[in-house]
Amino acid sequence: MKLDVCFSPELLPSYDLRGRVAVVVDILRATSTIVTALAAGVTHVFPVAGLDECAALGRATGCLTAAERDGLPAPGFDLGNSPFGFLNPARPVRGRALAISTTNGTQALRRALAAEAVVIGSFLNLAAVVAFARQQQRDVLVVCAGWKGQFCLEDSVFGGALAARLAPLGFDVRSSDAALAALHLWEQAAPDPAAYLLQSAHVRRLNSLEASEDFEFCLNIDAYPDVLPLWQEDRLVLLEK
Amino acid sequence: MKLDVCFSPELLPSYDLRGRVAVVVDILRATSTIVTALAAGVTHVFPVAGLDECAALGRATGCLTAAERDGLPAPGFDLGNSPFGFLNPARPVRGRALAISTTNGTQALRRALAAEAVVIGSFLNLAAVVAFARQQQRDVLVVCAGWKGQFCLEDSVFGGALAARLAPLGFDVRSSDAALAALHLWEQAAPDPAAYLLQSAHVRRLNSLEASEDFEFCLNIDAYPDVLPLWQEDRLVLLEK
Repeated sequence: MKLDVCFSPELLPSYDLRGRVAVVVDILRATSTIVTALAAGVTHVFPVAGLDECAALGRATGCLTAAERDGLPAPGFDLGNSPFGFLNPARPVRGRALAISTTNGTQALRRALAAEAVVIGSFLNLAAVVAFARQQQRDVLVVCAGWKGQFCLEDSVFGGALAARLAPLGFDVRSSDAALAALHLWEQAAPDPAAYLLQSAHVRRLNSLEASEDFEFCLNIDAYPDVLPLWQEDRLVLLEK
Repeated sequence: MKLDVCFSPELLPSYDLRGRVAVVVDILRATSTIVTALAAGVTHVFPVAGLDECAALGRATGCLTAAERDGLPAPGFDLGNSPFGFLNPARPVRGRALAISTTNGTQALRRALAAEAVVIGSFLNLAAVVAFARQQQRDVLVVCAGWKGQFCLEDSVFGGALAARLAPLGFDVRSSDAALAALHLWEQAAPDPAAYLLQSAHVRRLNSLEASEDFEFCLNIDAYPDVLPLWQEDRLVLLEK
């Protein structure tokens, strides 16, 4: 099996997704938030592209709605894109469904649906992604949400972290230049991922928009080692163990 | 001024080229070969996308023709895509024009033409690119030709090498994640660029197609420190000093 990394959804047309596991990643913050939501008891997640669609789904089904644009919570929705929104004991989310719209993450997911299996990756559930890849025994493609179509450091570095975990399990993580580069970036980041990622101007910009607690939270490697959001029909559900 | 790196022509739509200097890079081997051709006395270069167009230009104008597909010389043309084709004393090229078609490089160039100035970069003429950027005092975008639309290591590492040279001249080389990553990859590669790049499966594949002399040649940093191919109207010419 082979691990490859696609640095932006705009590059997906040059990859063959058929027969592969796609791991969609938007570390800051869509996929970290979706993992946290399912870990907190949300029953399933509808990722939607537009704000209107998200609001309409909320009205039609009574589900929770979460939306952000350009890093800030969008007005008129139950929640923004902060994982902490799902950890507030005063507003429990257990048993509720969720519709979520985000700038980059949702669109990466939609474009990856040609894959054999589509799962959601983040540092929080890295171990769950590793376990799934091991069980599937298929080629794996990390689909980075990126930043407005461009390469972003935190998603790419996640690709390298996954490569580092899959290599000892027999995955070829060095046959594509993108996987090789991601692995090299992760090797630089691994001793202190937060310090490494704070070199990024766009990570620092996000930190200035909201409390930097979100950033630190999203880097908790293996905080939810059993939470694997899996695409089924029209939604993300927790993989049954 | 800012330096940014675009890892694939497929990502160009998300960059604003206006007012910028675009440095088109296809280290193995299109842009290294174009630099070598102009250094060897070729008067100007027509980069063309298709083999038919290349052959037709040769018939119509009597210029030299060079073409490769998938790393091998295309049949029926004067030259392939090896820089050594332009260094053969038995077949001098001085005073001739050249039409060249390549898999990735030509297409990257064509897509970059919205920039204020478009130049050709390679390790061979790195110093010339640095001098031009310094003189222009504009934002610089490295446009990597990539490999069939995907990220490739050697073009990206060149972006990092250019960043390392431009940073001390007052260019901001850390405000985009792509430039930052390219710089980090270059820092890993710099002690021994050849050994670093030979980790790449596609670089090794290219080496197996032709003599590895091409690869070694293309890594001669500053071999042609004064050769700057500049786009003018419909062709690449040597920048007048």
